[in-house]
This record gives sequence, structure tokens and C-alpha cells, in this order.
Amino acid sequence: MSTNEPASPGPAREPSRRSPFDWLDEQARLRADAGLVRTLRPRAADAGNLLDLASNDYLGLTRHPEITEGAAAAARLWGGGATGSRLVTGSTLLHEDLERELAEFCGFEAALVLSSGYAANLAAVTALAPHGSLIVSDAGNHASLIDGCRLARATTRVVPHADPGAVRKALEAHDGPAVLVSDSVFSVDGDAAPLGELASVCRESGAGLIVDDAHGLGVLGVGGRGAPHAAGLAGAADTVVTLTLSKSFGSQGGAVLGPAKVIDHLVNAARTFIFDTGLAPAAAGAALAALRLLRREPARAARARQVAAELHERLTAEGLSAVRPEAAVVSVRAPGPESAVRWAADCRAAGLAVGCFRPPSVPDGVSRLRLTARADLTGAQIADAVRVISRTAPR
Amino acid sequence: MSTNEPASPGPAREPSRRSPFDWLDEQARLRADAGLVRTLRPRAADAGNLLDLASNDYLGLTRHPEITEGAAAAARLWGGGATGSRLVTGSTLLHEDLERELAEFCGFEAALVLSSGYAANLAAVTALAPHGSLIVSDAGNHASLIDGCRLARATTRVVPHADPGAVRKALEAHDGPAVLVSDSVFSVDGDAAPLGELASVCRESGAGLIVDDAHGLGVLGVGGRGAPHAAGLAGAADTVVTLTLSKSFGSQGGAVLGPAKVIDHLVNAARTFIFDTGLAPAAAGAALAALRLLRREPARAARARQVAAELHERLTAEGLSAVRPEAAVVSVRAPGPESAVRWAADCRAAGLAVGCFRPPSVPDGVSRLRLTARADLTGAQIADAVRVISRTAPR
Repeated sequence: MSTNEPASPGPAREPSRRSPFDWLDEQARLRADAGLVRTLRPRAADAGNLLDLASNDYLGLTRHPEITEGAAAAARLWGGGATGSRLVTGSTLLHEDLERELAEFCGFEAALVLSSGYAANLAAVTALAPHGSLIVSDAGNHASLIDGCRLARATTRVVPHADPGAVRKALEAHDGPAVLVSDSVFSVDGDAAPLGELASVCRESGAGLIVDDAHGLGVLGVGGRGAPHAAGLAGAADTVVTLTLSKSFGSQGGAVLGPAKVIDHLVNAARTFIFDTGLAPAAAGAALAALRLLRREPARAARARQVAAELHERLTAEGLSAVRPEAAVVSVRAPGPESAVRWAADCRAAGLAVGCFRPPSVPDGVSRLRLTARADLTGAQIADAVRVISRTAPR
Repeated sequence: MSTNEPASPGPAREPSRRSPFDWLDEQARLRADAGLVRTLRPRAADAGNLLDLASNDYLGLTRHPEITEGAAAAARLWGGGATGSRLVTGSTLLHEDLERELAEFCGFEAALVLSSGYAANLAAVTALAPHGSLIVSDAGNHASLIDGCRLARATTRVVPHADPGAVRKALEAHDGPAVLVSDSVFSVDGDAAPLGELASVCRESGAGLIVDDAHGLGVLGVGGRGAPHAAGLAGAADTVVTLTLSKSFGSQGGAVLGPAKVIDHLVNAARTFIFDTGLAPAAAGAALAALRLLRREPARAARARQVAAELHERLTAEGLSAVRPEAAVVSVRAPGPESAVRWAADCRAAGLAVGCFRPPSVPDGVSRLRLTARADLTGAQIADAVRVISRTAPR
């Protein structure tokens, strides 16, 4: 039947023939035409000969027996799940231990554990930026911080990436409560925020500082205490830090650290805390085991930074364009999205897993490979990785 | 120094003396004055003689050895965490198994697992309600659905609770793509949405239906296949279901079920999927173990409903005002927030843990006790619970 013919069974039946989700077909075509289709590629438990430089397991702990046994023991003792909101049945003494030790380690008065870093960012930003207040947000911030800004009742002003001058201007133009929100280490390029300067600018204006240290915890600061600790901000009354337990700590979950009154406020006001099931005991147990291991073996943090520096140095020596790493992420520029995808595929075919970031995941439109400088990589593995990346590089 | 004196060291130092979070002190005072302070009360691994009717562990599975061993074995085999976004290193064959078996069980074409039910709701609502579209949202929806509406680029129209006529009016007034968003079973009162009628109304208008089956999975439908399955909506091209793995399945995590093209779209467009670390293997393993156990022992679902009906009948016989349960949640009215808190405390003192919901968590301002009809409660435990609740009831 031609589309110009009248619909004989009457218009009432028309809608039921089409799916309300048919507009997704067009979206899928657009993605395919642009070469931007994402598909899941599940991995096996045994990685075989594949060398992993794609994960966020910065300290190489996720398969460490102390961490996996921490998860297993917690599941056995506490059960498979937390069974409810942390405010009802979901708080255990295990969560309390994790919160106390996390706060102590990073140098803050109190901590609150949530089910993910994403949830922690939504909680901190929405609860600390009420109606009438201002959020100043770095243009390179993670999606979860951006979503936090969008959910908050405050007005958000996005400022150019890592630009304390722009932050000062934005804060000076506002009269009333304000917070600056920034990643400490930016996921895509692995560059660092100028935390010390940003903190000074905030203090000049009486603004609060919310730092997402997802990529700093376990890597930066003395023994991996994180970027805020390294910047002298630990325990500051005007600083709040968000964390993930799913990168250096090899587990799952997120946390917010800060003054006790901030944490008390989150318990009472943060929707992603109040209306979510508590973090599973296994995840809390794995994270706590990782934290304790890191306290005992603080050199792991410095080793991750050293591996990153070595990767950067060798890649640069091969003529590749890599960003000087501030933590454990090494970003290598690719000429374009197609060549980046091909480059990553060629690396994989040669036994090396690397991350591949391209639009629309990268707001600046620059495609790159993203390498993780895991603390447990050997010198030989680093040399192998550099050889593969260099040999497969687009010419 | 009196507050009327000029600040002698000059205005520049004033901001640094105060914390930017001092406004939280006033918030804390207001909460205290209103008797609405929430505090965490961590529990021990051994509940002693405390009978739990407060958790969301509807099938009593969270401490079942198959579930805890599922968690432990997964942590050992796969590691403490997923190590990255599901699109990079965070997808394992375990996630794939869980997704396939979940989709099969509930009768949908495909499934996608996320780190929480909260994240699943944010993903489904934001990705399926683009700019220019309409979201019709039930006034009693869970916080995570509400936040999904707020994050989505669509226009949201909130309609009265469980009111198909109001949904029809809202849909008719809009020209273009639309979705209706509703819980299947509402958390606070345990009442059910009229899913069949809502689906008909959506079909008349060509609108999509997004159902959060957090409290239906494992309890409603044949063998616990959920409320959409019970309503004949399984596999429908216009229906999308969100789930949590943290209630009946005794674990952590969330999922979206629906047509394959919806799931493909989420993989490519849902920010809380793309920019979050994958669900921890232990949580995926526990959930998969729970699903397999429920397939083997389908009577658990009916038993949860039976316990709820029995609780309701006995409480009503005692003269208490309880909402007829549609699933495994039994809600009992309290005269006010203070008496509800006291009632719950008196129950606890008598060895019974019950939930206590009060403003601002309940939008209708009605305070109530919330009881969970766990499938593993014995007749004697039910009788004990009713005796305690009745004896401690505010007169």
C-alpha cells in the first residue's frame, strides 16, 4: 500500500501498527552513517595473552586475592545485597568501617558511601547547590557532574577548562552561595585541575569547592591519598571530595568526603543516597580490603605515576602526540574517529587492549587512545605496549 | 565582638572565616525543630532476635547460600570490580548471561544491566524522552523516575496517581512522541498501577510505556516474572521495563528490558550506562543465582503475596488501617510523623524492625509504617509481628 492512500481501517488503528519507539531506527541509521555505533564486547574471565591498558584498575588490585576475598567474605557474612536504603536496613557496620577508614585515609572529617561514583556526584552537587545558588562548572567535567548540575536547583555557569581566572570572574558576578565543581584529574586526557589555585579563588569569594577525585584516589598524594590531599585541601571546611571505589580500589561504589555537617546534610537531603539501595556488602568489603592494602603498601600509588611517566616518555620518543600525564591516564592523539577506532582494533589484534575515545563522548571533538598506567605493569609490558601502539599508529 | 562592629581586619578576610557551607547549620536546625532528623543506624551481621519486616528482601534470598556463593564465586573468577565502563572493559560474559536470562525470564527481547535501579531509571527515561517529546509521569512515582524526568530533554506533565483518564487527557493534548512513566507497584503504599488500562491508553495515542517494576519482579506474575508479564505486556514493542536487582534478587544493580532496538539505543545514548563503571561481578553473580533459584522454585513469588495478604488481614482485624497489598508491601497508617516514629521505635524495642515513612519522603504527607511481607516468614513470625504492631499502636 502506498503511503499516499488513505488508511482504510480508520485513523484509530494507525498508531497501534507503529511502535512509539520507531524514531530510534532513524537514530540508529544516523549513528551507522557516522561510524559511531557502540556495541558491547563481553570479555572472558581469562584474558589470555591480551595486555590490558584500557581498564581503570590503576593499581592492578581488582583481581588481587585480598580484594576478591574481601568481596567474598563480605557477601558470606552480610548477604548478597544491602536489602534497603541506607536509612532503613541498608547500613551495616561494614559500611560504617569503610566510611570511617576512607575519611581517615583521605584526611576528611566524615565520609558517606553510595552505590556508585555517579550517584555520589549527583548527591553532592544537588544537595550543596540549592535554589538561588550558583554552580561554576569546568567545561571538561565528567558526565555525572554535568548531570548533577542539571538536576540541581542552582544556576550553572560553565567555564573554560582549567581556567582559574574564568572561575574568579564567574564567582565575582554572583551574589550568594556558590560552589565550584571540578574533576581533579580529567578522565579523557588525564590532565589535572589547578586545585591549589582553584581553592584560592573559591576562598576569595567564599565559595565552596567540590572536587571529583575519581582518577586521583590511589594514585596522587602521599600513598595515594588523592589530589585534594596533595593540594593541601584535606579536611578543609570549604572542600568536599567525591570518589569512586571502582577504579584504584578495584570494586564498585562511590563516596563523598567532607565536613561532618556536609555529610549529615547529604544523609538528610541527597536523593541518590536516600532513595537508593545501599552499596552491596561485597563491594564495600572489596573496597575496604583495597584501602587497607594500599595503607600497607603505599608505594603502589607512586608506581602507577611512574608507569604513566614512562609510557608518556617512550610514546613521545616514538613521535606520537601524548599528553603529559598528571596521574595514571595517558592520552594519545589520533587523526580522527575512524583512524582511532582502527588504531585501537589493530592494537587489540596485536594483543593490547587500549581505550578509544571519540565524539560524542569527547566534548572537544578530538579522538584519542586512552592508556591506563597500571601500577602492576612490568618494564617488559610497558615496552611491548609502546611497540604495538607505535607500530599500529596511523601514518 | 558584637556583630554590629565593623570588621576590623577589612572585608577581604571575612569570607575566609566563614565556611561556604554554614547555611547547612540553619537547615539542620530546621530539621531538628521539625523532628525530621535522619541518622544512620548501622546493623550488625547477626540480627539477634530482631525480626526484619523493614527490608526489601521480598523473597528472603539475600542470605541464601546460593546467592552469597554466587557473589563470592563471581568475585573470585572475575575480580572485585568491572574495571571500567561497560563499553570499554566493564562487560563480561557474566553480565551477558545475566542480561540474556533476565530478558528471557521476564519475556522481553533484550536487557541491559546497570549499576543500580536508580541508574536504570535515569537511563531509560532520559534516552527515550528526547527534546520535543512528552513525558507523562504518575504523581506517586519513585524519586529516580522523577529525577529521570528532570534530566530528560522532554517536557514532563505530572498526572494524578493511578489515573488512566488523566493520562489520556495529557497524551491527547500533545502532538509528537510521548512516553508514560509509572511504577508498577508503588513503594510507599504497596498499591499497584492499573497497567492494563494504562497500556491501552498509551496505545490509543501511540505513546510508549516505561514501567518501573522494582517492587513487582520476583513477587507478581507467573513465578515472579513481574507486573508487566502479569498484565500481558511482556515482549510488547511499545513497553520498556526497568528493574532493580537489589530487592527480590537480594543483590545490587538495575536493568532495563525491552525491544532490542531500545536496548541498542541505550547502549549508545544513556549517560548513566555509558559513563558509569559496570556492575560489580559479585552483584551480577548474586542476581543471576537468585534468578536461577526463582526459576527452580517459582512458588516463592506466590508465598510473598500470601504473606502480605495474611499480614493485611490480621492487621485489619486488629482495627488498624492498612492498605490492601498488591505485592509484598503492606502499609499501615499512623496518625502523624511523631507517632509513626515512636510506633516504629516501640516495635523495634519489642524485637520487630519495620519501615517508617514520613514527610518529606512521602509526597502526600501521610506517615505510615511500611512492612515487608518476606516469602520466608513463618506463620508464627507473622502472628508475632501483628501482635507487636497492634500492641504498640498509637491510641
